[in-house]
Amino acid sequence: MKRIEKVITSIEGLDCKLMNFTQKRLDNLTKPRGSLGKLEELAKLIVGITGEKNPAMKNKVIFTFAADHGVTKEGISAFPKEVTAQMVYNFLAGTAAINVLSRHIGSRVVIADLGVSSDLKPHKNLLIKKVNYGTKNFAKGPAMSRDEAIVSICAGIDIFEQEHARGIDIIGTGEMGIGNTTSSSAIAAVVTKKPLKLLTGRGTGIDEKGLKNKIKVIGKAIRINKPDSGNAIDVLAKVGGFEIGGLSGIILAAAARRVPVVIDGFISAAAALIAFGLQPKVKDYMIASHSSVEKGHKIILEYMGLKPLFDLDLRLGEGTGAALGINLAEASVKILTQMATFKSAKVSEKNNDKP
Amino acid sequence: MKRIEKVITSIEGLDCKLMNFTQKRLDNLTKPRGSLGKLEELAKLIVGITGEKNPAMKNKVIFTFAADHGVTKEGISAFPKEVTAQMVYNFLAGTAAINVLSRHIGSRVVIADLGVSSDLKPHKNLLIKKVNYGTKNFAKGPAMSRDEAIVSICAGIDIFEQEHARGIDIIGTGEMGIGNTTSSSAIAAVVTKKPLKLLTGRGTGIDEKGLKNKIKVIGKAIRINKPDSGNAIDVLAKVGGFEIGGLSGIILAAAARRVPVVIDGFISAAAALIAFGLQPKVKDYMIASHSSVEKGHKIILEYMGLKPLFDLDLRLGEGTGAALGINLAEASVKILTQMATFKSAKVSEKNNDKP
Repeated sequence: MKRIEKVITSIEGLDCKLMNFTQKRLDNLTKPRGSLGKLEELAKLIVGITGEKNPAMKNKVIFTFAADHGVTKEGISAFPKEVTAQMVYNFLAGTAAINVLSRHIGSRVVIADLGVSSDLKPHKNLLIKKVNYGTKNFAKGPAMSRDEAIVSICAGIDIFEQEHARGIDIIGTGEMGIGNTTSSSAIAAVVTKKPLKLLTGRGTGIDEKGLKNKIKVIGKAIRINKPDSGNAIDVLAKVGGFEIGGLSGIILAAAARRVPVVIDGFISAAAALIAFGLQPKVKDYMIASHSSVEKGHKIILEYMGLKPLFDLDLRLGEGTGAALGINLAEASVKILTQMATFKSAKVSEKNNDKP
Repeated sequence: MKRIEKVITSIEGLDCKLMNFTQKRLDNLTKPRGSLGKLEELAKLIVGITGEKNPAMKNKVIFTFAADHGVTKEGISAFPKEVTAQMVYNFLAGTAAINVLSRHIGSRVVIADLGVSSDLKPHKNLLIKKVNYGTKNFAKGPAMSRDEAIVSICAGIDIFEQEHARGIDIIGTGEMGIGNTTSSSAIAAVVTKKPLKLLTGRGTGIDEKGLKNKIKVIGKAIRINKPDSGNAIDVLAKVGGFEIGGLSGIILAAAARRVPVVIDGFISAAAALIAFGLQPKVKDYMIASHSSVEKGHKIILEYMGLKPLFDLDLRLGEGTGAALGINLAEASVKILTQMATFKSAKVSEKNNDKP
């Protein structure tokens, strides 16, 4: 917990002075004021986060963390749990959606095993940070111990620091874990206190009956485990997952290093909620990429006061939405740094703005 | 008109057989069915448009057409009309927003003068296809003659064909013309028959008083000119613009060549409406990139049955939203062509989908 405390206390506020300067700079570029909408807001936010007048966007990294969930024993997923490990191999082969989109945006992908239930074959691009062989079935007791929750967050911090040494300008979060929408709905329910019906979706594609069972299982898990909504570590331990804990660590560590964090979908938002519970200031460093089909996503984002950039009906995870968000973030910074001003391009200004 | 007729009659329907095949192919990729939402729909549409199983996305081209509008004499714009020519030089210098975003997505930009009111200095990257030195003030009579309307559309067809010879896989539309939201609102009002209040926005940033005047001017223009809503050439001639006619030509020519057309904002949508009036089939070849702040945009898209991909509060034009849309289109095709199938990656399928 000491390591987490250290990271948390080193998270500072945004550089508001530089953001004000950037607003003036954006207003002088050859376009009507504010006409690039969210791209302009994004550029300003990235300046505020990084404290850099001209933020770099060279080193883009997506962290895709995998882990298994004991709650799959309750039949809450449309896919068998073996898929978690199979998909890790797919990531390593470079043929999953996240690989395709990462190549498209020129990003690295860091694949880590935070708690897959089997031993994965070693691979040069696979980080093994296994906290345990999957969580326990949280419909019958805590998903993990308090120590394991802390270890999973610290693993995320370690992985971030290791990658940061190689160069990082912006990151995205991503995950793979059969059963992890169930865990995320549980986290969201405990923290936001909204009804489970509004927070629970079909995940990889369960039917109406499966959805009812999923809601029942989560309700039971919360009644049995009684997670303390004011204690993020307790929530993570009782109903979370190892990949979720790992991503919380990534988010906290990135904020401490003033690196923008592009949040992917529902599970990434649940991880963000754990990080937010530990240190609300971390929210300033988050960029919500998309609005997921998984309906609890919107509620989590609203709870933290975040607005997603776009809605493409995505519900895959892996970091796919974050990849597209990083791409927009890069575009926004290029707008800030590469466009001419009215003065440099000799373009007349708006009639009313003339002296 | 013969040239336009020839292009119009050569526009065919989408390749539905190949689209059905593509749907099955998408369903076999390693992700829950449909979990990449609009990206999957986009990939399928591009296959249907191009008739290519694995569409190429190498040659991306954005057409940014400039022209002036006589209606600026009515004080309907926040910027002086000289800005049209000044911005063309900014495009040619590579320092406008469209240049930045085109570089970001790896696209060419084709800049053409369709009717700027002054003679522009020659430049190797500037196409001069001037129909006239700006339109006439359509608050007092037709913006252009019927012949000029036809010439502007044919200029667009010619420019497309010239670029097509260099290689084109996907295109975006863009424009610059002080006063052209006024022309676009007029076109939208005549064709969609919706009230001007719902179709008229603040353009580059006029105030409440300016907005009232703009609506009054457009109302007067429609009363005086009586454009025939069923005759797209007449609408273009009475209240259109040369860059709008040019873009209509681009859209028709692209559809005839089975090239996907990513539509930018409000003015591009007005050009699309003219093309749609000439040949409704052209709609199948259009991809609406974004939903503009300029409020008539949504109404035009709905009229043609198009749904925008994203809403980033953009209202700049130039092709900036189209650039971001092309980027998504490229991502969608990469998803289709680069991802592994469940079988090739040895990933188990959904429980219910098993035999």
